[in-house]
Amino acid sequence: MTKPLLLKNLRLMGAAKTDVLIEDGRIARIASEVTPSGDVTVEDCDGALVLPGLIDAHAHLDKTLWGMPWHPHQQGKSLQQMIDTERHLRHELDMDAERQSSRQVALALSKGTTAIRSHVDIDTDHGLTLFEGVAATRDRYAEVMQIEIVAFPQSGMMIRPGTFELMDQALRDGAEIVGGLDPCGIDRDPKGQLDAVFGLAEKHGKQIDIHLHEPGEMGAFSLEMILDRTEALAMQGKVTVSHAFCLGMNDQARVAALLDRIAALDVSLATTAPASRPVPSVAACRERGIAICAGNDGIRDTWTPYGNACMLERAMLVGLRNNFRADVEVAWALDTCTTEGARVMGLEGYGLTESSRADLVLVDVEAVSEAITLRPPRRLVISGGQIVARDGVAEATWQTA
Amino acid sequence: MTKPLLLKNLRLMGAAKTDVLIEDGRIARIASEVTPSGDVTVEDCDGALVLPGLIDAHAHLDKTLWGMPWHPHQQGKSLQQMIDTERHLRHELDMDAERQSSRQVALALSKGTTAIRSHVDIDTDHGLTLFEGVAATRDRYAEVMQIEIVAFPQSGMMIRPGTFELMDQALRDGAEIVGGLDPCGIDRDPKGQLDAVFGLAEKHGKQIDIHLHEPGEMGAFSLEMILDRTEALAMQGKVTVSHAFCLGMNDQARVAALLDRIAALDVSLATTAPASRPVPSVAACRERGIAICAGNDGIRDTWTPYGNACMLERAMLVGLRNNFRADVEVAWALDTCTTEGARVMGLEGYGLTESSRADLVLVDVEAVSEAITLRPPRRLVISGGQIVARDGVAEATWQTA
Ligand SMILES: [Zn+2]
Ligand SMILES: [Zn+2]
Repeated sequence: MTKPLLLKNLRLMGAAKTDVLIEDGRIARIASEVTPSGDVTVEDCDGALVLPGLIDAHAHLDKTLWGMPWHPHQQGKSLQQMIDTERHLRHELDMDAERQSSRQVALALSKGTTAIRSHVDIDTDHGLTLFEGVAATRDRYAEVMQIEIVAFPQSGMMIRPGTFELMDQALRDGAEIVGGLDPCGIDRDPKGQLDAVFGLAEKHGKQIDIHLHEPGEMGAFSLEMILDRTEALAMQGKVTVSHAFCLGMNDQARVAALLDRIAALDVSLATTAPASRPVPSVAACRERGIAICAGNDGIRDTWTPYGNACMLERAMLVGLRNNFRADVEVAWALDTCTTEGARVMGLEGYGLTESSRADLVLVDVEAVSEAITLRPPRRLVISGGQIVARDGVAEATWQTA
Repeated sequence: MTKPLLLKNLRLMGAAKTDVLIEDGRIARIASEVTPSGDVTVEDCDGALVLPGLIDAHAHLDKTLWGMPWHPHQQGKSLQQMIDTERHLRHELDMDAERQSSRQVALALSKGTTAIRSHVDIDTDHGLTLFEGVAATRDRYAEVMQIEIVAFPQSGMMIRPGTFELMDQALRDGAEIVGGLDPCGIDRDPKGQLDAVFGLAEKHGKQIDIHLHEPGEMGAFSLEMILDRTEALAMQGKVTVSHAFCLGMNDQARVAALLDRIAALDVSLATTAPASRPVPSVAACRERGIAICAGNDGIRDTWTPYGNACMLERAMLVGLRNNFRADVEVAWALDTCTTEGARVMGLEGYGLTESSRADLVLVDVEAVSEAITLRPPRRLVISGGQIVARDGVAEATWQTA
């Protein structure tokens, strides 16, 4: 049990200065002046602005090359080629999933992330080894990083016999969510894949999170099939669609109808707000009460050289993609990386109120918007009541060689 | 005259380690081992990677609120409203153009920028005061920041009588470039405005840089009128179109024909690669030999809360917008912030070769791509042979209160 921690002179979401007392991993008290009593660690925060723990609701902890030699990317790969390349490179480059995922988790802690939903590849080449590696990291970091694992059939399920059984095993072994991807584009069998995915979810009583990159009408078709099954199986509130580029298509009436149905079925969306692809509009989702959360997706992996695990940078990219400029809009961008992520992950006790879990990110900025536009090194990151990073660097306990 | 500077153990654009001797503001020698002789400052660089000076080829030095209290942005402004709001806020907020522009220049130096093309508002409310403020900054920083000023009729030229005469005066007083904007959208008189802009360029023997936000066919129409005049007045190589969102329109055949004509007339483009607007494709420009450079546009001003003057961040945004992932492609994104900017600004002696002007940016990364994806604080920035920033902070000489 850690000692109580008294933070002096904080501005919660930019509000007036208060003190915050943290006990037993929770926010015990918020008051303009809390006097230390007993054995308590006191930290003066000089009026730093506080955000709640950042949430990366779409990550791939098994994929990153962080901490390894720079990997030169080549041009001209199709989605299928990228998938195959990665499967082979994992062996060639010695991409140990436990080591790499814990490197990314330590990095994410240093940036203020306190919860991650990570897809993890399940395929017949690697069996459950990647899942096992990330699960070991999840267990090691359990006190300070809330990690959910999505059993993700990256290389296809219908086109790769044996994958279904491995998914089934991963779910028995503690994967929290059933994954899927591009039922038309990759598996070429939307009915087969989606029946399998929803079947696994029913069997194991788990939620679903499906990668849907398919553009335009093909994606809308797959999305409708997902919505049909969500409705038929009464899985309202238990299904997330990641990316959903089809919701960025030009036909506004078509998009509006799809969004209305998504709202009615309480399906949530996860986005990276990519600049080069159509995307669902955050404002249009908010208008309908649809939960839309954000994630960094893969960072510095065989797919992309970009990314540094910073969810404030993702908030900026969400803001830029949605042309959010007003402070209230920039706050919506931040919401995708905080409250909306907590809503999608169903995190208990999330927030900056008394009795909430003590996940606090301190930044030396004036306004909430400035936290997103400036993104200075985090002054202090507190997760589950523990100080896990200071001045942009994770505490030694949580670092990985 | 500064002392010669000997930099040991550098990797120019990630190549093998060399030493670099800088004398009289120039790169005097590049060799695997240079022995110090005489009175020379020696700096060991531990294998840092070197980029050439970064170039912000589209800035607004008179607009930034950097260093001032956080300005809360409101929702729902049209372009015309944003223009009017800014004109009024300049007075209300005491946005002194000399102070603010020099703050931005100091910030830009700290990030490794060594040349800036800045548009500066010329309007009948402010007369030439904004131009004079930025010109004072240009003169103060002349040794270490190459600044070009575009006389920019932000509030319109045809719709605001008196602006033309002020533009004329600014050009007589040393503004380097004739600006313009949205001849249909803002001035509602494309022939009138473009004849005036090209007339001023002819009269003063200056180049042109026109903001063209107009989308789709309206933008293409204005662009054609610009190209017509470029051709008729033999202004090949002397015209830049900034933004050119119309070149991001869906009609690929139409875009290709416009790009072909742009290439033939040696017109250059400047982009910010915004995530929320259509943009010209960097690859399509490169294929045709069209110079396409990048700029941060306004940073933290009454238009936008985003931006920090970092051109490596802009390179990242260019890369993300263009879906550049391969190392060779990420290098194209960097080019828009380095060599292409130098080409558009016509900078003499730009580059990392012997006898080039000594503008060097040192970053502790392994690969060029990593400089863009990680963007660590600049280890050392050298401009015109002087050390102007270290560890992300501008030297005291160049800071502004
Ligand atoms: Zn993903
Ligand atoms: Zn501009």
